[in-house]
This record gives sequence, C-alpha cells and structure tokens, in this order.
Amino acid sequence: MIDLEVLKDSYVTTPSRIVMLVVDGLGGLPHPDTKRSELETAHLPNLDAMAQESACGLTTPVLPGVAPGSGPGHLALFGYDPLKHLIGRGALEALGIDVALHPGDVAARGNFCTIDGEGLLVDRRAGRIPSELSAPLCQRLDQIELDGAQLDVYPVEGYRFVLRLRGAGLSERISETDPQRVGVPPLPAKPLGPEAEKTARLVNQFAAGARQLLAEEERANMVLLRGFAQLPHLPPMGQVYRLNPAGIAAYPMYRGLAGVAGMKVIPTGHTFADEVDTLRDSYSAHDFFFIHYKPADAAGEDGDFAAKVQRLEELDALLPRLRELEPEVFLVCGDHATPSVMAGHSWHPVPLMLHSRLTRGEGVSAFNERACAQGSLGRIPATQVMLLALAHAGKLTKFGP
Amino acid sequence: MIDLEVLKDSYVTTPSRIVMLVVDGLGGLPHPDTKRSELETAHLPNLDAMAQESACGLTTPVLPGVAPGSGPGHLALFGYDPLKHLIGRGALEALGIDVALHPGDVAARGNFCTIDGEGLLVDRRAGRIPSELSAPLCQRLDQIELDGAQLDVYPVEGYRFVLRLRGAGLSERISETDPQRVGVPPLPAKPLGPEAEKTARLVNQFAAGARQLLAEEERANMVLLRGFAQLPHLPPMGQVYRLNPAGIAAYPMYRGLAGVAGMKVIPTGHTFADEVDTLRDSYSAHDFFFIHYKPADAAGEDGDFAAKVQRLEELDALLPRLRELEPEVFLVCGDHATPSVMAGHSWHPVPLMLHSRLTRGEGVSAFNERACAQGSLGRIPATQVMLLALAHAGKLTKFGP
Repeated sequence: MIDLEVLKDSYVTTPSRIVMLVVDGLGGLPHPDTKRSELETAHLPNLDAMAQESACGLTTPVLPGVAPGSGPGHLALFGYDPLKHLIGRGALEALGIDVALHPGDVAARGNFCTIDGEGLLVDRRAGRIPSELSAPLCQRLDQIELDGAQLDVYPVEGYRFVLRLRGAGLSERISETDPQRVGVPPLPAKPLGPEAEKTARLVNQFAAGARQLLAEEERANMVLLRGFAQLPHLPPMGQVYRLNPAGIAAYPMYRGLAGVAGMKVIPTGHTFADEVDTLRDSYSAHDFFFIHYKPADAAGEDGDFAAKVQRLEELDALLPRLRELEPEVFLVCGDHATPSVMAGHSWHPVPLMLHSRLTRGEGVSAFNERACAQGSLGRIPATQVMLLALAHAGKLTKFGP
Repeated sequence: MIDLEVLKDSYVTTPSRIVMLVVDGLGGLPHPDTKRSELETAHLPNLDAMAQESACGLTTPVLPGVAPGSGPGHLALFGYDPLKHLIGRGALEALGIDVALHPGDVAARGNFCTIDGEGLLVDRRAGRIPSELSAPLCQRLDQIELDGAQLDVYPVEGYRFVLRLRGAGLSERISETDPQRVGVPPLPAKPLGPEAEKTARLVNQFAAGARQLLAEEERANMVLLRGFAQLPHLPPMGQVYRLNPAGIAAYPMYRGLAGVAGMKVIPTGHTFADEVDTLRDSYSAHDFFFIHYKPADAAGEDGDFAAKVQRLEELDALLPRLRELEPEVFLVCGDHATPSVMAGHSWHPVPLMLHSRLTRGEGVSAFNERACAQGSLGRIPATQVMLLALAHAGKLTKFGP
C-alpha cells in the first residue's frame, strides 16, 4: 500500500508511537495427535491477555497458497507489495551476513566447487568443505583485482560465500555461472542486456582469477556464482508514511530488510531480550519500531513442535517489558507461518493483533490462528497492516473531502 | 493468478496428483419453508465426512454480485482472471455442441428467422421451429461455398445453429446481423476494424446464400448471426503450472472449456459414473484432473429444489469412488451457485473444500454454505483456488528468498 500515491497526503506526523513486533514464522498447524497448533498448545498468558484488549485478525502474507521467503514476508508487513518489490537472492544473502549494500552494488551467492583436469564440474559444493577451510580461501579470492570495480568476498558458511561488486555502471542482469549439474564446465556469465556487459566481463574476470588462485586446492578449486542482485529501489517508509522508523533485529537479514525499507537500523545484541533493551533505550528517538523475534521460526523450520511452543512461551514472558512502554499502537504479527508439521514456511494466514486506546477487545480470548479468525480485522493482506497501525496511531487522516 | 509472471519460477512438477471436482451450480439458498439450503437439506454423509478432514471456505466466482456464466465460472477455478479472459458467445456455443475450434476460427450463434416479401423481419426465431425441421436446413446451409474460407453449419436445437468459419486472416471483430427487433431487415455484417473486412464480406456472402437457399421456406426463410467469436489466447495451464492436466466432462461445453485452458480432454460417457470410471482408468497418466458434475446445476436452473437435493445426494454416493484413489489433493468446488429459489446462476459465494495430508479438519462438520463459511480458507476469489491446490500438493514452492 506504500505505493498508493493517492494516500500520500493523508499521512501525518504525530508524537504517538507504533511498535510492530514481528514474530518470525508465527502461525502454525495443529499437531496430528492433539489437534492443537503451536500457539494453541503454548501457555501464553501475556499474549492472550493482550488479545482480549486488541483488534484481532489474520494476515495473508502474499496470496493464498503462496509461501513467502523472509524478504516478501517482511516487505509486505512494511506495506510494500511483495509481488512488485523483489529482493534478489544475492542481495538477501549479503544482507543475511551483514554485508552492506549500497545502491548500485551487485551481490551474488557464491559456491566453492570441484572441477576435474578438463575443467568439468565434479562436485558443485566442493565436498561441502567446512568454514575453517573456506574462510581463508575467501580471503584469497578477496585479493583479486578487477578493472573498473571494487570486489569483496565474504564467507557465509561451509562452501558458501558472497561476492560483492561495487562501482559505476554495474547491473544485476547477467546469467548465472552454475550449470546446475556436474560433468560440464562452469558457464561464463552472459549479459542479459547491453547495460550488463561490463558486469559480465568483471564476473568472468573474477572467475578466471579464482580458478588460477584455487588451482592447487584439492576440493575447492573453482567457484560458481548465482543470484546476481542489486538492492531494489524502495520508496523509504519514513518518507512515505512521514515516520521516523527504526528496526531492531538480532539477525542480520532482518536488519538488512529494515535498512532496505529505509528504517534506521539500531545495533543490538544477540537475543530478543537484548532487542527489548535496545528498544527501551531508543524509545524516545523514534515513532515507529520494527522489532523481530526469530526463534519461533527456527524451531518450526526444524520441525520441532515442542521447541516452537517453548520459543513462543519465552516470547510471551518478555512481552510485558514491551507493553510497559505503553506505545500508542502495539502490533503483534508474523511474516508467514512456519508450521512445525511442515518444517518450513507456509502460505497459511497468520495471527495478528493490534492494541491501541481505540481497541478494547472483541471477544477474542486468545492469540492463536482459530481465535484470531473471529476477530474484527478479518482476513487482510499483510500489505494493509501498516495502514491499520498508522490509523490507530492517528497518523493516517481522512481520505478525500 | 495464472497471469502472475512473478510466480512463474515457483511452480514445480511433482508426482503428486490433484483432483478438482467441479459441481456445477453447487451453492444454493435456503428454502423459504425450511430455511435450509439444498446442501443443508441433502443427506451427504460422504461429503460431510470429507469436510471434517478438509480445509473449508467459500469462493467468490467473479465479484460479489456478479453471477457468472459457465465460461467465467470455470476459467476462474482454473486460475484465469474471468474479467480479463473472455470467451465470446459464438465460441462458447460451438464448444457446447462439441464443435472443434482451432485458433483463428470464427464461430457465431445463428438463428433461423422469418422475413416478409420486402425482406423485413417478422419473427426473429422463425416460429421456434423444431430441431426436426431445422436440422435438414442446416445441412442445406452447410453446402454454401465461400471465397477464401471453409464454412460449416451445425444444428444446436430448435431454431439455433452454429456457423464456423475457418481460414486465414479471419477476425471476430464484426457487427451482428440481428437488429434485435422486427419490422426492419437483417443488418449487413460490418467490419469493426480493417482486419475484419474479409470476415464481414464472407459473412454477408453466407447470409446472401442462405437467403437464396431458404427462399421457399415458410418460416425459416432467413438467418440472423450474432456473437462472432474466436477462441481467446489463454496461457495453457499445463505450461504455466508445469502440470499434465486432463479434463473429464460428460457435457461438451465443459470439455470445450477444459480444452481452452490447455487440458487434455479425455473422452468419456454420458453420466458422472462414466466420468469417474474414465478418471480411474486414466489416473496414472496425469497429475491434475478436472472432473465435472452437471446435474445439480440443471436441477437448480429448473427451480426444482427437491431435484437438486437428489442430484447432490447422487453425487455424494459416488464420492467414495474418487476418494479411493487417494489423490494428494482432492478439491470439491463449484463454478457458481444455482439456487433453486432463483432458478438460475447467482453470484453467491460457493462452498469449497480441499483435502490433503496437511488438512486435518478444523471444526467444520458439514459441506454446505453456512458450515464452509467457518472454515480456515475464509472467502477467497475463485482464481486463487489453483494456488491453494498446487501449494497443498507441493507444486508451488516458496516465493522469494
């Protein structure tokens, strides 16, 4: 909805504050034995009490049936149409390890791989070499010099790294060098348009340099590159909504997404408790806070129902420290469901609750999938959540005379 | 949603199977005496049992208030935006009597009519002459020869026939020859653009030939033509969704619609039991099946509440023969409601249930309008049904990194 030009004069700056708590992978599905979801199983006295004083509903992250990655899931909650504003894999990979991307930078996901004497791929993941072996190789690759761009190589984990190119006239529109099968040589990067010729040349120069520098390695003797991506040009949410927004996240990718949306990213520690402290310390400096809770998603991805229940209970225990701040609008929402029974992201609608002085409860007695389905907000696209938050905060005024 | 370019890399082919049972005119309205709809009145042990293990909801065929014809009703369920992909009347009429249409063919709906000595229309339906009289006249018209196109005339019923033109450079963009009132002569067909000049000339040549050949007839001494239409260019659903889809329908129009969507149309018999046998016989050859149940709609169109109840019970009795196949995803849905109390198609939301290993019931105890409204799928546009089906079958992967 951030693209709705027609609303642009309806946003106003006020002293009121919005706290948006995004619980990653919040939604779930019933356990086959108990027929109760993770949220329904967990003991959540604080979330449930808040639901009893909130407006509740369910959000559809992208579309029914469409399970979003972290990028589209979060952009939608910030108001960006996730089908329109795409973040490429390389850019998200870079954000995920705290690699700064400037407008124009091109990032790619890199793999170390193994080629034979004839240059044919034998193993696309270089025998999954451990980080201890790959990190020094990344340092070696980082020394490669290109004509006309700065190059940086960052280790991710195991056989994976990020390549970042920085310079004038770069483009993400080049083909991948990974042929996606063995027995053939790595592909040259090809420009997908005339604007990408320079980038393709630089990438091929890098690949040739890597081949030379890695020639003596037993397993990691070549690289494959894919997911070339630049940052999308998003209208900054602070500017559109006339907010001074801040993002607080212990995990780099979510800091990256906050930055992409134009939020001020506030440094924090490694736990959600650290994030809460950070939010309390910076509470007077901003009027919108995105604060991210990761552990529920991680447990869901592991397919560990009991662990997800526990992570939700741990979140619940910290909720009062946020509510104490008495923000004018306090939202609890999720970027997507991560049902433990699916051990992955899903498309299911995600519980949402919004607390403000204008909401005083509506008979929803608990914060879970079934209870929120009965709430007054109904089922809405996640892109509309910001509009509701702004309206309840008095920051979205009457539309039209 | 089939037009969403941005999802095109998210579809994957898997061995799982989807069976989509479309119950024509599925939804209804309460009987004024009992206050119970046809579905609520019928004894449907198998459908109800399935609802108890499914995700349930309601579909809006086109838009609230918009009662769709068979064309938009089905195209929406296959994922095509029914407001964008239109099938013209002539084309649908041809599909409805199993007349094959190739890309480029122009079909029109024809009426026999009566003109007086001065050529003025006296009866636009030629006294509603019976099929026994009109069929031989169609054979006579079929003999007309045109310069530059093949012509075929097919009887429909009574005074109605289908004209099909086949040849290079034809266009549907010509005006109708039916002036919609008596006392005036039939109109000449006029091209609505330069690309249609040839077609208009051919149609007028046909009309002149018909007038000559029918001159001695008492009632059916002329023809009127309307609804000139070519097949729309739809992206084939097999290609977009990476499926190998098949359509099974006892009625020609639905075979035609399956063909328009790019499904393989499997020959079958005249009853739904025949269709079920056909599906079972071809089960290993496809990964998506559209199977069509017509009788509920026919009873609703007749305004026969009791008959519609009975047709639904007959469907219910055959359901186990489909469920025995244990498709990974089994959907029961409808193209539109045909409430008996309205004796016609309506705009009302239509019950939907989707059964898969990921759905374990959600407290919906029966398959009807009221019960499905409580289901987790909520109320969704019919165009989103395919996304849900594909997702539950593991054929729609995560969107975005």
